[in-house]
Amino acid sequence: MPKVNIAEKFALFADHWSPKVVGAVDDYEVKLVKLKGDFVWHAHAGADEMFLVVAGRLTIRLRDGAVDLGPGEFFVVPKGVEHQPTASEECQVMLFEHKGVINTGDVEEARTLRHLERL
Amino acid sequence: MPKVNIAEKFALFADHWSPKVVGAVDDYEVKLVKLKGDFVWHAHAGADEMFLVVAGRLTIRLRDGAVDLGPGEFFVVPKGVEHQPTASEECQVMLFEHKGVINTGDVEEARTLRHLERL
Repeated sequence: MPKVNIAEKFALFADHWSPKVVGAVDDYEVKLVKLKGDFVWHAHAGADEMFLVVAGRLTIRLRDGAVDLGPGEFFVVPKGVEHQPTASEECQVMLFEHKGVINTGDVEEARTLRHLERL
Repeated sequence: MPKVNIAEKFALFADHWSPKVVGAVDDYEVKLVKLKGDFVWHAHAGADEMFLVVAGRLTIRLRDGAVDLGPGEFFVVPKGVEHQPTASEECQVMLFEHKGVINTGDVEEARTLRHLERL
């Protein structure tokens, strides 16, 4: 049960939209992801999803608005709420969510990941 | 469902060993706490507990060693494992754990909190 240095983990990968599991709390997982560009609109029917920005800036578009996040800010997308993460420049994000959550939620597309790498 | 700025939340309180709830993911809560000095040795029989250091330094003593954490580092104390958080200078910590977790776990003492403030 080692400690985790978040910056060291982010240095281990470069790909976008591919969350890596770096920790677990009961049945919930801590994931790190690098984001750039527009993700797909999607929702997670049964699960809230927390986005905590570590570096850069992230916008989470919602059907009725948008949330802009900088470093040290987080937002929890409630279960069932459609959202589209977007970032004009690369940003680093920590996710906290149930281990069963699929990145693209109710949508199947090229970036859908059913098995996440552990770092 | 507003976004949360962690530094702004930490500016709202000064007391030690008194976690404040600042967010929730399903039945799990995001809590912020300021720590200084030695806490009580305790364990949480049914719940993992995540400590993410935001500012300062935190040591988590375990019966068979200790984990030293600086900003941007986290450690998950596994369920049932006795631990004692300690900090020689004030540190700022984000906790992630099930909403039912009591700060002093299986121990009842002066700092035990059964109802947490929400910020």
